Amino acid sequence: MKPEILALQSRMAERGIDLYVVPTSDFHDSEYVSPHFSARRWLSGFTGSAGTLIVSKDAAFLWTDGRYFIQAEKELSGSGIALMRMGEPDVPTVHEFVERHLPDKGVLAFDGRLVSERDRERYVEIAGRKGGSVVTKHDLAGEIWADRPALPCSQAFSFPLQYCGRSRVDKLAALRQEMEKLGATAHLITALDDIAWLFNIRGDDVAYTPVVLSYALITMDEASLFIQPAAVPAELEKELEQDGVALFPYEGIYAALSALPEGTKLLLDKRRVQCAAVDACGKGVALIDGPNPTTLMKAVKNEAEIASLKACHVRDGLAVTRFMKWLKEAVAKGERLTELSAAAELERLRKAGENYLEPSFATICAYGPNAAMMHYCATEEDHAEIRPEGFLLVDSGAQYLDGTTDVTRTFVLGPITKEQRLHFTAVARGMLNLQYARFLRGCRGINLDILARGPVWDLGIDYRCGTGHGVGFVLGVHEAPNGIRWRVVPERDDSAVLVPGMVTTDEPGVYIEGSHGIRTENELLCVSDGENEYGEFLRFAPLTFVPIDLDGIDPALMSKPERHRLNEYHALVYSTLSSLMTDEERQWLKDATRPI
Amino acid sequence: MKPEILALQSRMAERGIDLYVVPTSDFHDSEYVSPHFSARRWLSGFTGSAGTLIVSKDAAFLWTDGRYFIQAEKELSGSGIALMRMGEPDVPTVHEFVERHLPDKGVLAFDGRLVSERDRERYVEIAGRKGGSVVTKHDLAGEIWADRPALPCSQAFSFPLQYCGRSRVDKLAALRQEMEKLGATAHLITALDDIAWLFNIRGDDVAYTPVVLSYALITMDEASLFIQPAAVPAELEKELEQDGVALFPYEGIYAALSALPEGTKLLLDKRRVQCAAVDACGKGVALIDGPNPTTLMKAVKNEAEIASLKACHVRDGLAVTRFMKWLKEAVAKGERLTELSAAAELERLRKAGENYLEPSFATICAYGPNAAMMHYCATEEDHAEIRPEGFLLVDSGAQYLDGTTDVTRTFVLGPITKEQRLHFTAVARGMLNLQYARFLRGCRGINLDILARGPVWDLGIDYRCGTGHGVGFVLGVHEAPNGIRWRVVPERDDSAVLVPGMVTTDEPGVYIEGSHGIRTENELLCVSDGENEYGEFLRFAPLTFVPIDLDGIDPALMSKPERHRLNEYHALVYSTLSSLMTDEERQWLKDATRPI
Repeated sequence: MKPEILALQSRMAERGIDLYVVPTSDFHDSEYVSPHFSARRWLSGFTGSAGTLIVSKDAAFLWTDGRYFIQAEKELSGSGIALMRMGEPDVPTVHEFVERHLPDKGVLAFDGRLVSERDRERYVEIAGRKGGSVVTKHDLAGEIWADRPALPCSQAFSFPLQYCGRSRVDKLAALRQEMEKLGATAHLITALDDIAWLFNIRGDDVAYTPVVLSYALITMDEASLFIQPAAVPAELEKELEQDGVALFPYEGIYAALSALPEGTKLLLDKRRVQCAAVDACGKGVALIDGPNPTTLMKAVKNEAEIASLKACHVRDGLAVTRFMKWLKEAVAKGERLTELSAAAELERLRKAGENYLEPSFATICAYGPNAAMMHYCATEEDHAEIRPEGFLLVDSGAQYLDGTTDVTRTFVLGPITKEQRLHFTAVARGMLNLQYARFLRGCRGINLDILARGPVWDLGIDYRCGTGHGVGFVLGVHEAPNGIRWRVVPERDDSAVLVPGMVTTDEPGVYIEGSHGIRTENELLCVSDGENEYGEFLRFAPLTFVPIDLDGIDPALMSKPERHRLNEYHALVYSTLSSLMTDEERQWLKDATRPI
Repeated sequence: MKPEILALQSRMAERGIDLYVVPTSDFHDSEYVSPHFSARRWLSGFTGSAGTLIVSKDAAFLWTDGRYFIQAEKELSGSGIALMRMGEPDVPTVHEFVERHLPDKGVLAFDGRLVSERDRERYVEIAGRKGGSVVTKHDLAGEIWADRPALPCSQAFSFPLQYCGRSRVDKLAALRQEMEKLGATAHLITALDDIAWLFNIRGDDVAYTPVVLSYALITMDEASLFIQPAAVPAELEKELEQDGVALFPYEGIYAALSALPEGTKLLLDKRRVQCAAVDACGKGVALIDGPNPTTLMKAVKNEAEIASLKACHVRDGLAVTRFMKWLKEAVAKGERLTELSAAAELERLRKAGENYLEPSFATICAYGPNAAMMHYCATEEDHAEIRPEGFLLVDSGAQYLDGTTDVTRTFVLGPITKEQRLHFTAVARGMLNLQYARFLRGCRGINLDILARGPVWDLGIDYRCGTGHGVGFVLGVHEAPNGIRWRVVPERDDSAVLVPGMVTTDEPGVYIEGSHGIRTENELLCVSDGENEYGEFLRFAPLTFVPIDLDGIDPALMSKPERHRLNEYHALVYSTLSSLMTDEERQWLKDATRPI
């Protein structure tokens, strides 16, 4: 058994703990976890981005999903930790495992700062059925992790009004109105993107996401921001204080919660707020469980944000379109490229534009059969060479000072099979079907999903994931509460009613194991399309301007309205980008967006 | 004030009742109400099929919906009863009205045999906020209604196994399995269609619905049917008893419920079961609230039912197709027809076929602007002549011994406008889009609705109702739990996952007030379309075989795949019906189903 696990087990024995759970999480339920929060990785040796470790008195188990089975097997080999392949038959879920393996009157423990109140409630329920208990106060990994990296502490900065369009004073006033409607006298926010949006601050504490480690506690007359003092430049501190925001040390949130006066009605989202925060609350505090009002508020982009977004998407589209030209020409010329060198060139082109900050997620640049793995990530050790045949799928995005992007194109690099052309055309048809939908206000993603997925289902294929997700504004590239999928998955929180100002991706695909993967993704801005006696009609305006590779399209497989939609979109790409291009590029774009 | 209302008010005063509610309902939450249960009608004078009467100490109010505003105004005139136009601004709902008008510590009353437990709970909540109470034991209308019609008491008959395909013994065993899964030791069924399905009996106690007044109480070893003795022929009684069904008088249900032993876990559907039944239960009875398992079981038609259905739909389609030929030829010849005479001819043609029982709902035969009223019903006093122009919309259906049908066609009788052609074509496109959908098991109506509604939404129009409803098998023409609409309406109970064997209508439309109404409706049988690594794909098989009037179609407004779908459907109509027709009819049908 790995020494780290043995050390953990000895601490467990000291404290009478039967099962100890180490999730992959930080104190904020962030999508990405910084090194300080990588206890699961440090304990197990498994480096994948998703997984849960459970240690018992004499064994250890690691759950991860299909993306990581091969990698986890390799990395766990010799560690004494058993790999639990999620979703495979006869592999229990984490909850089922706890149900089976917690002894009668047993003690289940974890660091309560890493587990949501909702998840804790589930564990308590399971333990309760066994007469057992749940202990949340021990950070056992922290106790034994000698060289643990420090908390991230990037410099926070004030996010310019020019881009975000609404002052923090305004936003706080609006939030307090929502709190009042809900009968709340205080509100705890732990989600870093909600806090960054509310206070108009940005930073660099979480990979791919320009946020700052912090907590916020809002009452009707106070707004307290708990943040590492070293992260706040003097000027920002002054600006925040002028706007009525009081600054406290990051760890001070627990003391502040315990000092809440009796009678406080505290709004918090049990799905997102860690149970340690709930435990910290004083006795007379009544909880109001519900989504943070800021989640919906920030999802609906305002005019300034939309104007910024449009500008950044033109820049982003220009970079990706230049990449397309470069790629297809380089491959045609016989240049030797790999998935990594192609991705590097794309990043170089993006960086050449204004306002670039960082990628908005790890680029997926996947050649041939690799593209059939939906979350493939090429590494120095393991990546493919690009050959002049088949598809290269590139799913990438960037954080700019004026927006966040996410775009996928699948490029045809040479001969493709008839089946591949059929699949490519179906994916393009689906993407455009959804992009040009018209619908009444009140629709959710579940109402619209079939527009994108239908052409794929017609082929007897499914892409086994949502069609699209919300996108933040200089925040997370995956953002609640809007999304497009055909089944409501409550924990995803992406089935909200679509309203003007929301940005959602539209990314159907076809993934054939061992053969090829195709995805075509635009970002769509929901806009009003007029009101009449039937209600308000809505539609989408595409934000993404990159040609869809016509070398993959068989026009005979498209209806006339479908060809018309493709031509309409391509005319928009051309009119948006051409004036920013050299003559040679323009000539190429003209052909790449020719009507079919 | 109407003397009936005055009499009611005097009874209310005697018993200290402040507000008395008279809904339109029977003891079984049936869709249609027989004369015995027409207390609301008798008290108010309003003859419409939907409405709620509330009487206070010195006033009376009748709620009804937009279909009936004109009729209700006429019929209530001089009665002293105020008309409450549901859905109009500033008109409170029944619940809002009670909230406002029930005095502090006031008494709200109704006949608890007519109000569901769920609705009672809402009234109790409202009254509770006022410190008031809800009394459910008085049938005040019954007390003063001297010449009240008797309970209906048609002859029940055993429904042949040849049509229904599954014995009552089998069904009872399957139901008990479901009860066991839910932890129930007893189950009360009050829904007449569920009872008729379970015991394989049919009758004629409710208009348009071949059911028998009855209650059922099922335990793990007893099945008790509460039914009027005069309704049960000796042979049926013997047959039921041989199958382990014990017969008791209809009213005996209350005594049986109060005799349930302590510890009984009684499954019932609070949305459908009347609160008087709940009140009758003994003290130690624990309720398990949930849908009747029979509701889902009967929605999934078995092989024998499907075979029967197909046969009855061929007969029904033949009758409606002959009607179409007769109608278009008669109008062309200049014959004088009215909405009533046309509907009579359609019924004559249906009756000429085998196994006909009765219409499955009141035929909607609506000419010109009348068709814009979705629930229009022509009467002797008020109906239109049919002229050789515009549309005639005919929505009709029948109960046969071997199935229930529901079909709408809109017929072109002469010149139509360009806009009318656009609308007619959009409706046909939507209907066929949905009919030819392919989708993964797990989809609900909300996932598919946009396939039918999208072409109408594209025109900036909405049809303001669901796209389709489940259809019973020789039972109600509107049947839970499947349906197709874009928003979940919990009280409709029509958003179940679609599974093979379910029958659902597909009936998009366009309704332009004062001008025209178009609806095209097929019934669709959900069938399996093969299973692979992605799951089980499903599709629909149309059950309805009637041409869509090509005189309304503009092929230029359809994509090639859409034209292909119409031609494919018409080829199916021709191949299904032509061999049953005369040469002359066949010739006509050939043209009516010609490829476009």
